[in-house]
This record gives sequence, structure tokens and C-alpha cells, in this order.
Amino acid sequence: MTIQVLNGANLGRLGTREPEIYGTTTYAQLVDVIETTARELEMDVVVRQTDDEGELLRWIHEATDAGDPVVLNPAGWSHTSVVLHDALAALTGPLVEVHISNIHRREAFRHHSYVSAVADGVIAGLGVEGYVLALQWMSLRGHR
Amino acid sequence: MTIQVLNGANLGRLGTREPEIYGTTTYAQLVDVIETTARELEMDVVVRQTDDEGELLRWIHEATDAGDPVVLNPAGWSHTSVVLHDALAALTGPLVEVHISNIHRREAFRHHSYVSAVADGVIAGLGVEGYVLALQWMSLRGHR
Amino acid sequence: MTIQVLNGANLGRLGTREPEIYGTTTYAQLVDVIETTARELEMDVVVRQTDDEGELLRWIHEATDAGDPVVLNPAGWSHTSVVLHDALAALTGPLVEVHISNIHRREAFRHHSYVSAVADGVIAGLGVEGYVLALQWMSLRGHR
Amino acid sequence: MTIQVLNGANLGRLGTREPEIYGTTTYAQLVDVIETTARELEMDVVVRQTDDEGELLRWIHEATDAGDPVVLNPAGWSHTSVVLHDALAALTGPLVEVHISNIHRREAFRHHSYVSAVADGVIAGLGVEGYVLALQWMSLRGHR
Amino acid sequence: MTIQVLNGANLGRLGTREPEIYGTTTYAQLVDVIETTARELEMDVVVRQTDDEGELLRWIHEATDAGDPVVLNPAGWSHTSVVLHDALAALTGPLVEVHISNIHRREAFRHHSYVSAVADGVIAGLGVEGYVLALQWMSLRGHR
Amino acid sequence: MTIQVLNGANLGRLGTREPEIYGTTTYAQLVDVIETTARELEMDVVVRQTDDEGELLRWIHEATDAGDPVVLNPAGWSHTSVVLHDALAALTGPLVEVHISNIHRREAFRHHSYVSAVADGVIAGLGVEGYVLALQWMSLRGHR
Amino acid sequence: MTIQVLNGANLGRLGTREPEIYGTTTYAQLVDVIETTARELEMDVVVRQTDDEGELLRWIHEATDAGDPVVLNPAGWSHTSVVLHDALAALTGPLVEVHISNIHRREAFRHHSYVSAVADGVIAGLGVEGYVLALQWMSLRGHR
Amino acid sequence: MTIQVLNGANLGRLGTREPEIYGTTTYAQLVDVIETTARELEMDVVVRQTDDEGELLRWIHEATDAGDPVVLNPAGWSHTSVVLHDALAALTGPLVEVHISNIHRREAFRHHSYVSAVADGVIAGLGVEGYVLALQWMSLRGHR
Amino acid sequence: MTIQVLNGANLGRLGTREPEIYGTTTYAQLVDVIETTARELEMDVVVRQTDDEGELLRWIHEATDAGDPVVLNPAGWSHTSVVLHDALAALTGPLVEVHISNIHRREAFRHHSYVSAVADGVIAGLGVEGYVLALQWMSLRGHR
Amino acid sequence: MTIQVLNGANLGRLGTREPEIYGTTTYAQLVDVIETTARELEMDVVVRQTDDEGELLRWIHEATDAGDPVVLNPAGWSHTSVVLHDALAALTGPLVEVHISNIHRREAFRHHSYVSAVADGVIAGLGVEGYVLALQWMSLRGHR
Amino acid sequence: MTIQVLNGANLGRLGTREPEIYGTTTYAQLVDVIETTARELEMDVVVRQTDDEGELLRWIHEATDAGDPVVLNPAGWSHTSVVLHDALAALTGPLVEVHISNIHRREAFRHHSYVSAVADGVIAGLGVEGYVLALQWMSLRGHR
Amino acid sequence: MTIQVLNGANLGRLGTREPEIYGTTTYAQLVDVIETTARELEMDVVVRQTDDEGELLRWIHEATDAGDPVVLNPAGWSHTSVVLHDALAALTGPLVEVHISNIHRREAFRHHSYVSAVADGVIAGLGVEGYVLALQWMSLRGHR
Repeated sequence: MTIQVLNGANLGRLGTREPEIYGTTTYAQLVDVIETTARELEMDVVVRQTDDEGELLRWIHEATDAGDPVVLNPAGWSHTSVVLHDALAALTGPLVEVHISNIHRREAFRHHSYVSAVADGVIAGLGVEGYVLALQWMSLRGHR
Repeated sequence: MTIQVLNGANLGRLGTREPEIYGTTTYAQLVDVIETTARELEMDVVVRQTDDEGELLRWIHEATDAGDPVVLNPAGWSHTSVVLHDALAALTGPLVEVHISNIHRREAFRHHSYVSAVADGVIAGLGVEGYVLALQWMSLRGHR
Repeated sequence: MTIQVLNGANLGRLGTREPEIYGTTTYAQLVDVIETTARELEMDVVVRQTDDEGELLRWIHEATDAGDPVVLNPAGWSHTSVVLHDALAALTGPLVEVHISNIHRREAFRHHSYVSAVADGVIAGLGVEGYVLALQWMSLRGHR
Repeated sequence: MTIQVLNGANLGRLGTREPEIYGTTTYAQLVDVIETTARELEMDVVVRQTDDEGELLRWIHEATDAGDPVVLNPAGWSHTSVVLHDALAALTGPLVEVHISNIHRREAFRHHSYVSAVADGVIAGLGVEGYVLALQWMSLRGHR
Repeated sequence: MTIQVLNGANLGRLGTREPEIYGTTTYAQLVDVIETTARELEMDVVVRQTDDEGELLRWIHEATDAGDPVVLNPAGWSHTSVVLHDALAALTGPLVEVHISNIHRREAFRHHSYVSAVADGVIAGLGVEGYVLALQWMSLRGHR
Repeated sequence: MTIQVLNGANLGRLGTREPEIYGTTTYAQLVDVIETTARELEMDVVVRQTDDEGELLRWIHEATDAGDPVVLNPAGWSHTSVVLHDALAALTGPLVEVHISNIHRREAFRHHSYVSAVADGVIAGLGVEGYVLALQWMSLRGHR
Repeated sequence: MTIQVLNGANLGRLGTREPEIYGTTTYAQLVDVIETTARELEMDVVVRQTDDEGELLRWIHEATDAGDPVVLNPAGWSHTSVVLHDALAALTGPLVEVHISNIHRREAFRHHSYVSAVADGVIAGLGVEGYVLALQWMSLRGHR
Repeated sequence: MTIQVLNGANLGRLGTREPEIYGTTTYAQLVDVIETTARELEMDVVVRQTDDEGELLRWIHEATDAGDPVVLNPAGWSHTSVVLHDALAALTGPLVEVHISNIHRREAFRHHSYVSAVADGVIAGLGVEGYVLALQWMSLRGHR
Repeated sequence: MTIQVLNGANLGRLGTREPEIYGTTTYAQLVDVIETTARELEMDVVVRQTDDEGELLRWIHEATDAGDPVVLNPAGWSHTSVVLHDALAALTGPLVEVHISNIHRREAFRHHSYVSAVADGVIAGLGVEGYVLALQWMSLRGHR
Repeated sequence: MTIQVLNGANLGRLGTREPEIYGTTTYAQLVDVIETTARELEMDVVVRQTDDEGELLRWIHEATDAGDPVVLNPAGWSHTSVVLHDALAALTGPLVEVHISNIHRREAFRHHSYVSAVADGVIAGLGVEGYVLALQWMSLRGHR
Repeated sequence: MTIQVLNGANLGRLGTREPEIYGTTTYAQLVDVIETTARELEMDVVVRQTDDEGELLRWIHEATDAGDPVVLNPAGWSHTSVVLHDALAALTGPLVEVHISNIHRREAFRHHSYVSAVADGVIAGLGVEGYVLALQWMSLRGHR
Repeated sequence: MTIQVLNGANLGRLGTREPEIYGTTTYAQLVDVIETTARELEMDVVVRQTDDEGELLRWIHEATDAGDPVVLNPAGWSHTSVVLHDALAALTGPLVEVHISNIHRREAFRHHSYVSAVADGVIAGLGVEGYVLALQWMSLRGHR
């Protein structure tokens, strides 16, 4: 079993894009933090990012077939993508939704997430550490 | 003239994805049902599925150029995709929108479809047989 | 078992009432199309129309007692009648809702139907052929 | 003075219609319960049910002319009928609205009643005993 | 050609029902006023009232077939009846909607009328004289 | 006592402005129709039009002081002007609101009028004859 | 088993507070009426009132532990208190919500109650007799 | 510096209240989990629960004066309490909001939290482990 | 007669809490300003603050019994507390609502106050001087 | 520096217009009260009223150029005039908005004011004394 | 043919009013920019500004009679003036709506313009250069 | 520095797709018009179109890295794509949003654009000339 850490649109730009909102950690550093955490927790992890909704759907279909747990930062698609919601509804493993920024303090259109309705839980606003916590939760619950 | 039967995101997962909603017929079986029906009705049919919105747009552009009738199950994009609506608005042949489940008995965000506003008609909730009925309608109206 | 094809208010005026929306087929012709289709499908069918909501409720109560399948065009009551919804909720046989016009392309008050929430499925915008398809679906599913 | 116990659409089906919501008491048994209660309370009572809105309006007009107290279960018309509201607004005797089920725990369209705005009071969700309580209230207030 | 003056639910109660809103003129007096006015204007007129929506629909169908002008006070159905709207949409003669009270000064649910969307014009709040004005307009426009 | 017939913004353009909506009668002809009607009804009448909201307020203040009846076509201000509503609320004579077009068949922002809430009644959609009817109502009610 | 009759904020002021809405019965008299009714029905009853939401929650927790039936007049908290809703959702005995006034005829903010969603039933607008009816229902259903 | 772990209304009932939503861990066990985690992370922690909004405000005022980090499960007050929002807005230390259940999958009134607008971040739906993660985040960020 | 100056939740924190919104005057200084003003105006005044809604209700009940004028800063409860509204509706003396900040320039949830609907008047955004003006108004109107 | 006391539409009618809402003080008496107060406070004051929105804008432009404090009763324009909001947004001196009546107890369309969003503070419902308080506030803050 | 460049309320204050939104170009400089551009494009142009809605209506009526193209910056009236919309609907020449600031990034009440519904096109947020572009478009389309 | 002229979904179909809305200029001709204009203005320009949202995001990321000005016609994505909004929010050069048709005169779902909130300005309804104006603005502002 491999934890799938999936990142949505624009997250490859982390560290350069609106740092006052998302912080200065780059995407490469984020991957490093996640992989380090996984090693410490003795988990297998794969970290991926895409700007193509279709590619994200296919990764979710694969995770579904494998029964893999998923940590997902759906970025802007959180608020608009029903197809993402539909793909996730079929997941067989657990799902934690992560947002780096506190979406509830931002524009109103970010207050609703189609993903939350099919996630086990949500972590928002705790920065890149949110991914670390998601992995720790997987570990606490024995998903690894 | 070829009937284009186009299927949107996640429909390739049919049979495995939320069977209590979508039934146990697999996507391969669905293709078979459609092709068999077409043969009986002496129609040419092409059945395609994609998880990429851009690919779906291109198929619609092709159908527009060819004047082909379209049977479309837009899946989750029904409720969110204005670009899909815009591509379909230019269709030169007839359009029937098909939903396997009865979207009006599900979450409120499934009650509105951008596709319905540019479709000739809509069939929802009648299962995979909905595709069969759509082809029969094309036949009754002489679109083949 | 008899398929009950029930038609709501004003449908007796078909062919004369707003033909640009509902077409030029008269109600008598519609009955004929339905009866012919039923014969071809070897089904028993009864076709009725009423402008009295109470009469429609009583027909539905009878269908409920008999376990008859129902094909219903609720016309304008679709959008306003909770008592119709309540009567239909008790049906023991299958229910297909039919609309001749595509209600989703018309005024906003036609976009919601109280009937859809208790129907198996909905066919809209496919003209009087919608009734034919509804019967074919009953046949495909073995309701006859 | 006679207490008019009036019942709206579909209530004649009580006991067979959605028993998980409305219970298994039949309409005949309900009438019996009401008449028994009335006898115990030494009241004159008439119990009627109709699926025709026009008939209900006429019964209300008669109660208005007689100054009779009314116990009304408007069923699905509660939520949609302005003409019912208008007829009741002219009542000269007291009015208690009764619902067998707790309409506030059901679909949103059942949360508003046009009748409540012209009733003295409302009893909802207490089952067929709600009618008994309505009669007891009439008795406590001296309406008999 | 006969002017059809049609009156909806509860209007037979005029003069006794909420006189602070509708005035003290009785329904019989209203009929008299209308017939007197018609005689003065040398028009044929028929004045009818019903508490049954189905009966009103049938009168409208008859007026449609005859091409008769219609003066309609739809009372409470104004605000709720799509089937009334649909029947009126097919009228071949002119239609004036009359309300005795000024519906715009009353409850919010009276501010919208499904009839207005298919009427030539609306007269509201001018009392029973509203009917007189409607006939005069028919006369001014040569509908008689 | 003089009937004040007051006309709001753009009505001086009548006959040239959107004739498919407002008809081809010019403002000068409208004045003539009103004055002729008043003469026939043996009423004093003053007809005025302004594109300045302040001027209209002052005319209403004058009518208030004189106790004059007012026939008002508030045109576009109907839907937006609270100050107009406030001035009219103080009127001591009767007020009839007139709209040449049927505002209920036009854009949604024309469905609400701040004037209706303080008018005795409203006439809409009956063309320039609406003014004639308003004067006749004043006459029937003895306001002259 | 003891019936808990719990009263929310400001109800201790009964009889002095807005008597045109709540009547002239004082809180002491209300307690007396309830206790008398309970004696007649051979029930144990405790009647309490508080202006502190926390205290009400604690009483509900106690009733939950004891499995006691609850008659609750939540007063103004009905419309605003999610914590009250949450406490009541855990009740193990039956719950009847009572309102002295008909909340559906008052301000719009009183039309929704968070309590109704977790109550068995609701009695509103029947005055202090509403408490009597609630006890009688408990008795009819054997909760005592 | 002491981490203040504050719990709102009804949380003292944990384990007995709606276990299908909140799980079977009791409040005493929750306190134990939190204190154990704090010891492992070498943090000072105080865990408190109250059913009185005023008491919660006072604890927040104390934390403000001390500059203490706060982990808050506001329970039902999340959705209704502006005074809680106002007290928290003045906090000088970090704030993590924790919900045991995934509030985004529950009733619509739980989808908005007044606390989120003044929290650094939010953890929802991850069970009692959510508290553990909140402490770990405090530790990762050096708040201890 | 004593003027009751009552302050709601968090106002005891004045001067330390969000000074950019509420200014730097402390609560002690506010009390001093009010008492000094009262002395100059030769009024009896009592100034109180509470974080407990129940306590505030009891103070209002006392003021009601005494017929005392009330100056109330309801703080965050303005926007959420129906029980506060209900207690104030029974006041026998005059009521002035004071807000230190201009609530109309802040978050949308602060734009509505349940208190305003039962207050004689409202002063908002004029800082702590708002209390001074409220006392002066009491003096101008002879409430002392 | 001169305090500009500006009054919007219809305020010249004070004392005659809806006295049950606005009181019986005439506009002339209001001017007198303001001028007397200004003399006592040793302020320069100019009191003006207009029914022309353009004139009010020009007075505000003048006040902006002079840096004058403004006391404004925008009357009905409060609720509708964006151009008034825009002119006031450029003011260089302080602005107090005054309403004679308590706009929050009146029609819903009076609950929002475009002026409040650019005013320092608002005084509503305190009668003509509201102007006196506004001047006193200017004096307390040293604006004179 | 003369291009009419019309400017609404407060635009005469340009350069002094909220320069962080509208820039530092004065109205005189704006006129100069427009006239210079017109000379270069060999167009006749008239540039006018008014704070009186009635005056603006009259200028639009004149442009209508002359068939002149119009470039209009309706300023705050964009969002509120139906009479402006009505006057513009009758224009016989082309209409370009110009906003100096990007109204879509400002308050929600600026997101809707009654003018856009009758304009050929809209230019917003491009500063005073927006006027230059509007003239260039008139030139490109041959309107001069 | 190169001006990036980016075109969203379906724009490659220009000239054939709904010409009554978008005109008869083909996409190839549009590219030609833009390149010709750029040459005249001595700008470097790249014109691209895509039906894949992910590809558009990547082009925006490249423009961000290069600091290139962007002219974007987001087509149907304007109204639905938060990920597009997020990518654009990070742009370092200026952004002009162009729509060929006047989106404010079309369906309500086209009235809001997620792009406008991060664009410098918007040009809508001026046809393909809108692109020319956008380039001219870049030139006027020195972005080349």
C-alpha cells in the first residue's frame, strides 16, 4: 500500500505564487518534507502534481484500484469540480483533503469544497505542515 | 452520417464506481449494448469516453463539422462546464443528453445541467437503457 | 398488469395549443401512437387525460392498488403540485415522467419538477416520441 | 355547533401510503378514533376527506357560514395552496392545523404552510393522536 | 363574440369574505355591475365563478375555441397555478387580469402572478370598478 | 380640485422611443387623449412630464397641499426611487399608477414598483388607454 | 420516569411580557396548570425555567441519562441555538416542542426552529394549553 | 506558556452522544489522549470543557492575557456565536480549530464557522486524533 | 429612576481588544466617562458589563420592572440573540442601542441587529462618545 | 470651518409628511433647533435642504473642498444612491449620518444605507434630537 | 455626426476624488486627452459632464435625434438608474460604456450595470485610456 | 518582452460557431488582425489557442516567469475556472481580459468572470477589434 499525495493545479508553482498566501516553501521542498515524513513514519509515499484535471482523475482511478490512501490538495478545483468529487466518491481507501491556506478566511468562492463532501477529513490553513499532519493521521489510523 | 455516442469523465469506471447509483453494467458492456442496438437499428455508431474536457470538446467540434447526431452523457461536467455548453451550442446535428442515474433525486448541485439548455432532449434515470432509447429516438426521427 | 399513461392539465388541447412548443400532433393522434406502440410491444395500455387534479390523484391511487406501471406527463402540475408528488410516492410500480418539450430550455419555473423526485426516470424534449420511448423502457425492463 | 374535521388530498390512503412516515393506522381507524374522542368530550363532529381542492373550499365556506370550529389536515396543499389560505382567512370559528408527520424533519418544501398563517395553532408530528389533541383543545377552550 | 368574465376561487364569497380587503359588494352585486356595464357598452357578456381549477381551465379552452375576449380575476390561483398560465397562453382573444385589492400592498406571495405573464394588461386595487374598466378597455379597443 | 396627470422620465419621447413596446402614439397625442377624456368626464386635468426627479417630487408636494388626485406614470423611477415612494406616501388624495406596457412581461427589474406600495391601484399594459381608464375610475369614485 | 417540562429564556416573565402575544397567565399559574394536569394523568412531572443556555443543556443531559421524556418550550433559543439542537439530538426519551404563540404568524426569524429537527412533534399557538396537550400525548403514548 | 485546549458545549458527553457521528471515545479518554500527547511533545497543556458560553469567553480572555496558544473545539457555537468570534479575534497566540466530525458532510448549517475566520487553521473530521494533530502542529511551529 | 447602561460580551476587554476598531479607551475609563456625564446631567446611572447572556437578560428584566431607561451596547449578541430581542421587547422605559464601531462598515454579519427592531434609536460608530450622546438624549427627552 | 447640515429629498415637508413616523416638528423648527444648538456650542453651521440629487452632490463637493464637517440626513436616497456614496467617499472632513426615524424598524428596503459605508457614524431613530447629538459629537471631537 | 462623450455624476471631480482608485488625471486633462485623440482620428467630439440625471437624459435624447455615437461613463448611475437604461435603449447610434476603474474588483454593488444591457460594448479598468480606446473603436467601425 | 495573446476553449472555431453572436471573422483572420496590429505598434506578439485548461495554465506560468503582458480571452472558462484565476493572480505583467461578445447582454451565468478579479481591465462586446484595443492599450501604457 502506497500513500498517494496528489496536488492539483498551480501547486507546482509553490513558493513563487502569492507567497503572502501560500508561504515561501517551494514545491520541491514540499516534496522533500513529505518524503522525509513518510520515511520517518515508515510509509511508502508517492507525491505528484498536475495542471490537468484528466490526469488527476486517472491517478485517483489508480488509487481506487489499488486501495491506496490519498492525501489530496485539490487547489482551485476544490470549489468547482464535480468530476473530481465523483472520482473521489469511488475511492476505496481513506482520503484527507489538505489546503495550505485557510480557505475560510479568503474569498467566498473558496468556502465550499466539493471534495470535503467525500473526504474523511480536512486540514486547512496549517501551511505545508498540513501534509505532515495528514501523513501522521494515516499512521495513527494504521493506513500504511 | 455516424451517431457519436460520447461519454464524459469517470464513465470508463462504470460498473465499479458507486454501483448502488450507476448499476453493475461495466463500460465495456455498455459499449456492447450501444453497438448491438445500432446494428439492429442499422445505424453507424462510434462510442467514446474521455476524462479530458479538451478531448471531448474536440470530438464535439468534429461532430459539428460532420453534421453528426450526438448522444452525450456529460457526467459531472453537466453541472459545471460552460465551455462544453458553448461547444454544443454550435452543433449542426441533433443532441440527446443521457444520464444513467436520476440526477433530480440526487444532490442539489446535480439538478442543473448546462447541456440541457442546448440539447434537443434529455433522458435521465433510466439506466444504461437510456442510451438505447436515445438511439431509438434518433431512428424514429430519421437521424442516421 | 396494464401500463397507465396519464396526462395532466391542458394536454387534451395538444396540437392546437402553442404548436411551436408542443408540435402539431393532436391529442387523438398521440393516443393512437401510444396504443399502436403498445400493441407492437404486446403491452396492455390505458391512456387518459384530465384537467382535474383530484381525478389524476384517484387514477394514481388505482394504479398503486393494481401495481401498474405509470407513464405520466404531469404538464404544469409538475412544477407546483405537492399532492401529486405525495400520491406518486406511494406507487408500487415503476414511474416514468415524460415532457414533450424540453422544460430546461423554457422559463425558470419549469426547471424543477416535484414528480422527478419520485420518478424512476425522466424523458424531456423528445416530442411525442417520448411516450414511445417510455413504453419501450417498460418493455426493456420487463414491466408489462 | 359541529366540529369540522377536514382532511386533504391522499389522506384517504392512510395506513397504506408510506407507513414509515404516516404510520399504519388506516383512514377508517382514524375516523373511528376521532369520533370516539368526540363522544367522550361530548362534541358533535363531522369527519371528511377529499382529493378535490374545490370540494375542500366549499366545506370551509360552509363551516364559515355555520361558525363551526375546524380541525384541518391540509396535507400537501399546506405548502402550495393560496386559495386554501384565502378561504380559511374568512373562517369565523377557531382553526387548528394538524399534521401526522413532523413536517419540519422532512423535505424543505414542507417547512412552510400557507395554512399556519391563518390558523390559531398547529400540531405536527404527533401521529393520529394529533387529531385527539386538537379536539381536546377545542374542548378546553369551550369550542363545542 | 362574447366577453367571458371569469372569476376564480372564493370570489363567490365576495362581500362576506374579508370586507376590509375586498369591500362589501356581494358577488351577486358584482355580476349586476358587470352586466349593466356590458349593456351600456353594447357588449355580450357571460359572468362565471368557480372554486374548481379544472372547471376554469375548461372555460378558458372554450373561450380559446370561440376567440372570445377574457376578463379574468384568478384570485389565489394567480400566484400558484402554472396550469392556468398554460391554458391562458393559448388564448386567441385578448386577456385582462383584474384584482379587486392592490396585491402589491399585501403579502409578498401575492406580488407575483403567473397570469400577468400571458395577459395583455393588469388592473389591480381599483375595487369592483376594475371589472368596469376592463370592459371599457375591451370596448375602446373594439373587442366586442 | 384638479386631477394631476404626472409623467416620469423619457415619457416625453413617447411614439419615437421603442414603439414595439410603447406604441406609436406621441406624447402630444397622449396629452390630447387625456384632455379630451377629462372634458368628456367634466374634470379639470393638468398633464405634465419631467426628466428631473426633483421636479416630480415638487409636483407631488403641490398635489399633496391641494388634495388633488394623482394619475402617475413613474416610468423607470417606479423600480428604483424610494424618494418618490416617500413623497407619494404623504399624498392626501387618491393615486392611480399607470404603465403603458405590461411591466410583468418585461425584464425582472421591472416587476417591482416602489409606487405600487403607496398607490390605491395599478393599471399596466393597457396602452395609452390606461390613462383614460384611470380618469374614468376617478370619475366613478367621485374624485373630481 | 419523570416528565421534564423545561422552559427557556424569558418564560419566567410570562403574564407580564407582551400579554397580547403570550396571554395573561403568569409563570406560576402555568406551573400550576402543568402540575395539576400531571396529577390527573398520574404522571411525575418537574417544571423548570432558566435564562442560562448552559443550565438548560445540563438539564437535557440529565434527562438523557435518566431516559426521561421532555416537554420543551425553547422560546427564543429555538431559532438560534445549535448547541441546544445538539444536546437534544442525544435524548433517549421522547421530545415534544411547545410554543405558546403561533410562531408561524410572527416575524420570519421565528419560522425556523433548530429544535423541531430533533423533536418528535411540535405544538404551537395553542396557548398554555399546549403544555396540557403535550402531557396528554405523553400519556396516550404511554410515556410516564 | 501553556497550550489551552478548550471544548465547547456538549463535548463533556462525548462517547455517549451520537456515537455514529462522534465515535465512542469518552471525554475522559479524550483528555487522557491529549495529556499523553502533550507529555510526549514536552508541552504544558490544560484541557477544559464548558456548556456556558460566558465561561468559554473568560478562558479565552485569560489565554489572550497570557499569550497562550489555543486549540478550540467550539462545537455547536462554531456556527452561531459572534461573541466567540470577537473574543478569539483578540487572541495573541495561535489558534487551531478542531472538529471531531467532518462538518462539511453534515447539515448545511454546520458548513460555516465564525471561528474559522479568526483561526490560523482548521482540522475537521479526523476524529479525536484531530486534537493530537493540533498539538503536533503547535510543536512543529514551536508554539510551546 | 436610574439609567441602566448595560454592556455585552467582551466589552470588559475594551482598550486591549482590537484597538484599531474599538479605540484605546479602557472599560474602566468608559465607566468613568459615563458616570461623569451622568453627574453633569444630574442623572442616576448604573454601568454594568457581562459575558453571560443570562445575566444580561436578568438585568433587563429588572429594568423592565423598575421602568428604567436602558442604554445598551449588545456587542456580538446584537446579531444573533433572539432571546435578547425578546427580553427587550418587554421593556417599559426607553431604549438606546449603542455601538462603538460603525457596524455597517464591517463584516456583513454585523449589518443586522435584533436589538434595533425593539430600540427607540441607534447610535453607531461614534466611539465611546456614543454613550455620552445616549445619555444626553435621555436628558433631552426627560428620561431621568 | 462650517458644519454643513444637509437634508435630502422630502425633508422640507417635515411636520406635515407622515407625522406618525417623523413627528410634528416642522422643517423651519428643525432649522431653528440646529442653529440654536450650534450657537450654544459656538459652532458655525449652515442648514440646507434639497429635492435635487445633483444639488446635494454639489454641496458635498463644496464641503470636500472646504474640509467642512458634514451632518447628513440622506432620507430616501440613503437606500438607493451610489452617486451620493461616491461623492461622500471623497469628503475630507468627518461625516455623521442622521435619520429621524429608526430605519431598522421600517420596511426592509430601508435597512441598508449606501451612506453608512462612508460615514464615521450613524444616529437613527432619535427624532430631530439626532441632529443635536450629531453637533454635540462634532463638538466633543473638536470639529468646529 | 458628432461623437458624444458623456460623463456622469462626480466625474468633474476627477483627479481629486479617490486618486488611488481613479488616478491623478484631472477632468480638464481628460477632456484634453479626448479632444486630442479625436483630432488625430479626424472626428468631431463633444465632451460633457453633469451631476444631474435629468440633464444626462436630455443629452441622450439629443444624441438619439441626431443619430450620434455615444461614449458614456455613467459612473455611479450605472448600477442604479433604470431611467438611464431606458433613455439609452432608444439610441440610434452605437454606444460604448467606459469605466476608469475595474468595477469588477470593487464592491459587489458595482458588478452590475444597467447600461451594459443596452451598450454595444464595455471598457473597464483601463484608466482614462479607456476613452481613447472607445474613440479608436468608433473610428475602426467607421462611426464618425 | 512578448505580448502573449491567449485564447481559451472553442475560440479556434471562430467564424463558424454562432456567427450571430461572435461574428464571421475566422480564427485565422483574427490571428492575422492581431499580428498586423502588433507590427504596426512595433510589438512582439504570440497568439495561441487551446481547448485544454491545463495547457492554458502552463502558458500563463511561462508568461509569469517571463514577465510578459497577457491579453486573454478566457471564453467559457471565465465563468467557472478558479484554477485559471489562481494562475493569473501570480502574473507579474499586466493583464487585459477580452470578450468578443457583450457578455452582460447574454445569459446570467456569463455576467461574472473569475478573470476580471485579477485583470487590470476588461474589454467586452467590441468584436475582434477588442484585441486591437487591448494591444493599443499595452502600447499606450508602454508594455512592449
